[in-house]
Amino acid sequence: MNPVSVGKKLAELRGDEAPMPVAEFEAAIRAVGPERYHDLHPFHHMLHGGKLNKGQVQAWALNRFCYQSAVPRKDAALISRVYDRELRREWTHRILDHDGLLPDEEGGIERWLVLTDGLGLDREYVISRRGALPATVFAVEAYVTFVREQPLTIAVASSLTELFAPKIHKERIAGMLENYNFIDDKVMAYFKRRLTQAPRDADFALNYILENARTRDEQQACIDAVRFKCNVLWVQLDALYHAYVDGHIPPGAFRPEN
Amino acid sequence: MNPVSVGKKLAELRGDEAPMPVAEFEAAIRAVGPERYHDLHPFHHMLHGGKLNKGQVQAWALNRFCYQSAVPRKDAALISRVYDRELRREWTHRILDHDGLLPDEEGGIERWLVLTDGLGLDREYVISRRGALPATVFAVEAYVTFVREQPLTIAVASSLTELFAPKIHKERIAGMLENYNFIDDKVMAYFKRRLTQAPRDADFALNYILENARTRDEQQACIDAVRFKCNVLWVQLDALYHAYVDGHIPPGAFRPEN
Repeated sequence: MNPVSVGKKLAELRGDEAPMPVAEFEAAIRAVGPERYHDLHPFHHMLHGGKLNKGQVQAWALNRFCYQSAVPRKDAALISRVYDRELRREWTHRILDHDGLLPDEEGGIERWLVLTDGLGLDREYVISRRGALPATVFAVEAYVTFVREQPLTIAVASSLTELFAPKIHKERIAGMLENYNFIDDKVMAYFKRRLTQAPRDADFALNYILENARTRDEQQACIDAVRFKCNVLWVQLDALYHAYVDGHIPPGAFRPEN
Repeated sequence: MNPVSVGKKLAELRGDEAPMPVAEFEAAIRAVGPERYHDLHPFHHMLHGGKLNKGQVQAWALNRFCYQSAVPRKDAALISRVYDRELRREWTHRILDHDGLLPDEEGGIERWLVLTDGLGLDREYVISRRGALPATVFAVEAYVTFVREQPLTIAVASSLTELFAPKIHKERIAGMLENYNFIDDKVMAYFKRRLTQAPRDADFALNYILENARTRDEQQACIDAVRFKCNVLWVQLDALYHAYVDGHIPPGAFRPEN
């Protein structure tokens, strides 16, 4: 009996609402992107449309570093809860993609620092997160906590914004290279690599939740997890917009020179 | 100023007891082994001395699997708390050592299952942990929780039983190969690999705590963490002894056929 059939049977017995068919569940997950992924955010349009000055791009890269550098902690938090070796083995790739592997694989965080270097930011300052917006830090840590605490299937679902990532990365690569004279191919290496990494990870996670979310409630919690993760991303751009477009930079946060 | 000098200065200012010199601290850590590492346990002596029957060795391998298979969760719990990328990169090797890396590196847990296969145990039953002693499961999960919750330096210190591991692995390889006709070279692959992995990891972790435990209290907590970890290992052999040597097998636990 396939997972949905089991869930359907269970729902009948309990008098609960039946789980969605797999195709409907997948469509509901995918529908979250057009509804609220951060490619819809005005700050994203300004970024890839060449409407930001260098200081604003610096602020974006510096804040986004907080997110990038939290990702391996988030993935380790997930692995720390997994009793199934095959799932751990699959998920460990994500840590390696971001942190690299000693002695000489550098990983995505290093590639992000190549971007912040290229933007003229001090590497130690970026890594320290001292200049990051508090709203960024709170959003990022909310994500780590979510993955550490939610049921495993829901935690896996929160990674599914990767379904929507290739489009935004392509827009960023094209838009930023075309529109900013301080951006070149070298500093865009992070996004280029993610074009192949993200779809592979997203396919695995999507299949995992389609198979493991067996009740209507679990399915709904997975969809909500993708919404939650979209909020984590959206909040970061809202905070950037408020601080660096509208000019309300909070105390202690990075202040561009130009 | 080196870490101990800083700690000493701090202790003077606070009126606390000064931290131990590094050599004394290291000696205190190393002294925990001869005091309570599980190579002192009677069950270990029976195991490598050929005094156990096959059913007792099966019980040992099946219970020890719970410990082996918890190690990557424990290491991921540690990584999930680490903001320093270099420390994460170093520690991720431990996950790979145990879980391997897709597509084809198998890792230590697979090597352990080769041992339980060789002992004639059903692999699915071993992995399910259904036959494990509750005391084993509790001890192992206490270790995962310790690493998830204690301050990072103390969590790192709890791995330092690896300082004492090469000796016990050598004894096991020689003793088990010599004394049991159901043990051959192939099934001892796990221990052979650990002869090179454990010292490398232990050196790193030892240097880490020597550098990062800066007060007398932190040093003492590190020593206690090694004792705690020795207890985690000792409890497992006590439980095996009680169940399979003295013959008090608790309800639901594995019952050898012979």
